[in-house]
Amino acid sequence: MKTILVIGANGSMGKAAISGLSHHRVVTAGRSGNGVDHRVDITSEQSLRSLFTSVGTVDAVVNTVGSCEYAPFLEMTDQQWRTTIDSKLIGQMNIVRIGTEYVSDGGSFTLISGILSVKPIPMAIADATTSGAIETFAKCVAFELPRGLRVNVVNPTVLEESWPVYGEMMPGFQPVPGGLVGKAFQRSVDGFITGQVLTVDA
Amino acid sequence: MKTILVIGANGSMGKAAISGLSHHRVVTAGRSGNGVDHRVDITSEQSLRSLFTSVGTVDAVVNTVGSCEYAPFLEMTDQQWRTTIDSKLIGQMNIVRIGTEYVSDGGSFTLISGILSVKPIPMAIADATTSGAIETFAKCVAFELPRGLRVNVVNPTVLEESWPVYGEMMPGFQPVPGGLVGKAFQRSVDGFITGQVLTVDA
Repeated sequence: MKTILVIGANGSMGKAAISGLSHHRVVTAGRSGNGVDHRVDITSEQSLRSLFTSVGTVDAVVNTVGSCEYAPFLEMTDQQWRTTIDSKLIGQMNIVRIGTEYVSDGGSFTLISGILSVKPIPMAIADATTSGAIETFAKCVAFELPRGLRVNVVNPTVLEESWPVYGEMMPGFQPVPGGLVGKAFQRSVDGFITGQVLTVDA
Repeated sequence: MKTILVIGANGSMGKAAISGLSHHRVVTAGRSGNGVDHRVDITSEQSLRSLFTSVGTVDAVVNTVGSCEYAPFLEMTDQQWRTTIDSKLIGQMNIVRIGTEYVSDGGSFTLISGILSVKPIPMAIADATTSGAIETFAKCVAFELPRGLRVNVVNPTVLEESWPVYGEMMPGFQPVPGGLVGKAFQRSVDGFITGQVLTVDA
């Protein structure tokens, strides 16, 4: 049994991740603090440091948070780009950078991207761009991590559980059950792979 | 003959691009202003607007600028990430967003990434990550541009002309002549392709 910190645990993607990790000891964190063990804002380095200090050493960190702004490209403001980059790109990179001090030898990070980087839809250019960035980041930074630490990215399509919310903006997409996405998180956490993008699509 | 604005024209990559575009009318811009027609800082929206206002309508914009900070990932500061993102990611996206107002119907943007996103080396995580981001950006934003505008990315390996500077940090890489990279810029500008990554590697 490993100790696994799941960030974004109270969201539908967090619940999907946990569905594949329930045989481990799961410590939960989320932005609101509701229904989780710890409160964290991944866009704040101080908040991340405070989280890792409170939780102590873990065997794996799973992140399912990456806030994105949605707008047509030509209407995207600099602030909308920065909000997205601060969370989905810099926030996730800081989880690895800071978390490296708190993850045990051979432990892992599992980050999140999203299917819209390979199946573009209107309004989603910031989501897609930062997904592409974090996937390239994981592929390349895997060679740099010390002590056998690993890093992978799960790239899920929309969840069945989220289809009522997102279905209308994703015509022709086939949602997948959260349990299938949970398997990808498990493959990352319990496997030996690193620098991989685990796409879960139908 | 088209009118083409080349940003970063005085650098070795800018010269490589121009080598494939010499049958057109080329208007040049660069950060220092030395040896070019216009001065521009792509990290400043105001500087970009000023450039496009001065140059007026063009048929294509070619950018070869993307400043990157180089350091081991665990030593990269937030400021180093932001400097790289502001130039190679946000700067290049702003060239497209603002430039769209100044490029004639059916015109094109050609941006730059780099081979280190697919052939990782030490110290280059910010270069690689932003290269992956701008490639995904171009693939996805191509569907959004109005009036038949096109956008592509050239992903070059190191130039023969730059080998004396970069060769030592890129063991086992095979440099290519600038003229070959110039061909990729020409394929983007004079072709009909859009949303493509034109990799030039040996």
